[in-house]
Amino acid sequence: MSSAISPLAPKDVPDMPVIAGLKLATAEAGIRYKGRTDVLLAVMDRGTTVAGVFTRSKCPSAPVEWCRAKLARGAARALVVNSGNANAFTGKTGRQATALTAAIAAKAVGCSPNDVFLASTGVIGEPLDATKFDGVLGHLAETAAPGDWLGAAKAIMTTDTFPKVATAAVKLGKAKVTISGMAKGAGMIAPDMATMLAFVFTDAPITAAALQSLLKNGVEDTFNAVTIDGDTSTSDTLLAFATGAAAAHGAPRISRASDPRLKAFTNAFRSVLANLAEQVARDGEGARKLVEITVEGAVSKPSARKIAMSVANSPLVKTAIAGEDANWGRVVMAVGKAGEPANRDKLSIFFNGIRVAKSGARDPAYDEAQVSEAMKQPRIAIKIGLGLGKGRDRVLTCDLTKEYVAINGDYRS
Amino acid sequence: MSSAISPLAPKDVPDMPVIAGLKLATAEAGIRYKGRTDVLLAVMDRGTTVAGVFTRSKCPSAPVEWCRAKLARGAARALVVNSGNANAFTGKTGRQATALTAAIAAKAVGCSPNDVFLASTGVIGEPLDATKFDGVLGHLAETAAPGDWLGAAKAIMTTDTFPKVATAAVKLGKAKVTISGMAKGAGMIAPDMATMLAFVFTDAPITAAALQSLLKNGVEDTFNAVTIDGDTSTSDTLLAFATGAAAAHGAPRISRASDPRLKAFTNAFRSVLANLAEQVARDGEGARKLVEITVEGAVSKPSARKIAMSVANSPLVKTAIAGEDANWGRVVMAVGKAGEPANRDKLSIFFNGIRVAKSGARDPAYDEAQVSEAMKQPRIAIKIGLGLGKGRDRVLTCDLTKEYVAINGDYRS
Repeated sequence: MSSAISPLAPKDVPDMPVIAGLKLATAEAGIRYKGRTDVLLAVMDRGTTVAGVFTRSKCPSAPVEWCRAKLARGAARALVVNSGNANAFTGKTGRQATALTAAIAAKAVGCSPNDVFLASTGVIGEPLDATKFDGVLGHLAETAAPGDWLGAAKAIMTTDTFPKVATAAVKLGKAKVTISGMAKGAGMIAPDMATMLAFVFTDAPITAAALQSLLKNGVEDTFNAVTIDGDTSTSDTLLAFATGAAAAHGAPRISRASDPRLKAFTNAFRSVLANLAEQVARDGEGARKLVEITVEGAVSKPSARKIAMSVANSPLVKTAIAGEDANWGRVVMAVGKAGEPANRDKLSIFFNGIRVAKSGARDPAYDEAQVSEAMKQPRIAIKIGLGLGKGRDRVLTCDLTKEYVAINGDYRS
Repeated sequence: MSSAISPLAPKDVPDMPVIAGLKLATAEAGIRYKGRTDVLLAVMDRGTTVAGVFTRSKCPSAPVEWCRAKLARGAARALVVNSGNANAFTGKTGRQATALTAAIAAKAVGCSPNDVFLASTGVIGEPLDATKFDGVLGHLAETAAPGDWLGAAKAIMTTDTFPKVATAAVKLGKAKVTISGMAKGAGMIAPDMATMLAFVFTDAPITAAALQSLLKNGVEDTFNAVTIDGDTSTSDTLLAFATGAAAAHGAPRISRASDPRLKAFTNAFRSVLANLAEQVARDGEGARKLVEITVEGAVSKPSARKIAMSVANSPLVKTAIAGEDANWGRVVMAVGKAGEPANRDKLSIFFNGIRVAKSGARDPAYDEAQVSEAMKQPRIAIKIGLGLGKGRDRVLTCDLTKEYVAINGDYRS
């Protein structure tokens, strides 16, 4: 397992401002790792609303089922996240572990277990010993403070090579509100499970229904448009919490996502999601290239998405990019296998702005040396023109390197 | 690029009997390679029927489009296969190249160009210079003989590490008939295209319609149940030819696939397809393990197929197998992401006959040492019990190794 920081990691980490109504704390609960934090407690003020989107897996983890069940109430006071054990495929034991964790957190924070949200990442199929949270969460609730975002983002990492945070500030009415979030990427640790977890917090006063609508709309072109290897985790979780504390300095209370006063907020919220999602792609296992795939001229946006994902998940395309090879033949293959309308004789393909194929054949003006030079960049943009309609979409992925195979296959050798 | 023979190659090559009414010949046409054969001509007697199935890619190669157009006539006299150039994504030039190749072959054999079938594998997007066949095919038609199957199977290889042939003999009525075939696998050669090609020949007298029906039924659980990397080629082609020569020694003429006299033949035909398809999996790029995935208890066979393919195409499952890790957590993940009905709490998973998970949790009796030993085998059988219905299916794949990434990504470095 490589622990070197991804060469695609952002150069700068933003200053993470305090979110009024939110406190964070981390500890070493000894779930699986030694000598590192592995549990995060976020404590939110009374009145905090919550929204969530989860893995579409038919075999979701116990914490995902827990959160789904509690989400309808729309209220949250605490979030407990542990790394080291995913509490997935753990049957009745798993459900008991979520109930016990929530009970311990509720007691520590002084709220109902129904107001506790949970997420776990790490080994799958191993029972999660929730008694390890006893004492730990009580201490965390006492020491929680509004500050250490990087510490929080580190506590939830598995094989992530860098902590992922993002923030934005924007006016809601005349009040300044803040949106900050953290994510962990699709990492793997022997013999564990890839999982994407992300948590976004704001002090804006927004109802749970409006927040859910914002989240659902925001995720479609951000987290849902990122793929590392096409393998959907049992545990993918994205939760958003709105403490509402900004109401105290004049932010209007928002109950509908379509409220025109929410426009700037909606854009800022989406930018935080997009920033975190891109960081997940930048920390793809073994990734050396960030790859952006844009499909234009499809019959519809969903059709463009399906074609873009077919390209993004193609091992042949991804290995070619790892080899710095502008192999548009493999792009054609991946377009063709997507099953969506495509006319070979209208296809055009660009690598980093250089057209290599047009009208169903190699571009006669294609300069191999120029393209080879472009393929050395750490960011590769593949644009595919279908020439059929106005459907357009964009997804992010990374290349497929031997390091990916090493991370995921070598630990038994 | 590795040229070592796959450790999964069959130990024995069968004696390939003559098929009456069929002659084979190979040559070095210099399409792309030096010092090896790269063109195969098969010449069939008058009266030969033909059936075919092709890639479902929306961007098929020119030879695929050529064959599709000619198939309706149901008659064949010649098959020309070249390696080194796929004649895919070559636009109008590609169509001209197929027409010219067919014209040259037709003249050489003495038939209509409509009776000539074509397949190409190799580099994509490069114009195929069909004038290179001029002279070559004439000489091949003169020297074609009923014998050299291995030579034929070698001429169509790209990065295949061994030639793939299979044969079966069976009674049709009271006459012995023979079914023999060859295939090439999903290989890659810089900067080329993965392609599966297979050709099956028989001396049985079967109409084109009956042969098409046999082929369509036979392919479903053989070639269509094999995946190397989920990347469907633009050029995948499986053609079957029936010379009908066995009628001369008493084989009845068959015009319907449902004819009861065809039962043994149908089974033998299917066994040749299954044999060739398994050899393709055994020669998957970088493969060190042959992996058989069986799904039982699904709501239907198509549902079982979709789940089995989700597991077979999962990079995380495939890298785990490369690492000799019985990582059933990743199998659960791949079942869950398939989008088909599955109940986590009813799931059971076996590796090489050893149950590692049952009823949605780790099997308490699971002996890690025993399973680790089993994972060292070159053939890994993963059985997944869903416990929902009677749907069952089986697919073949191989593991995902660093060698796969090296073959497909390294040639620019």
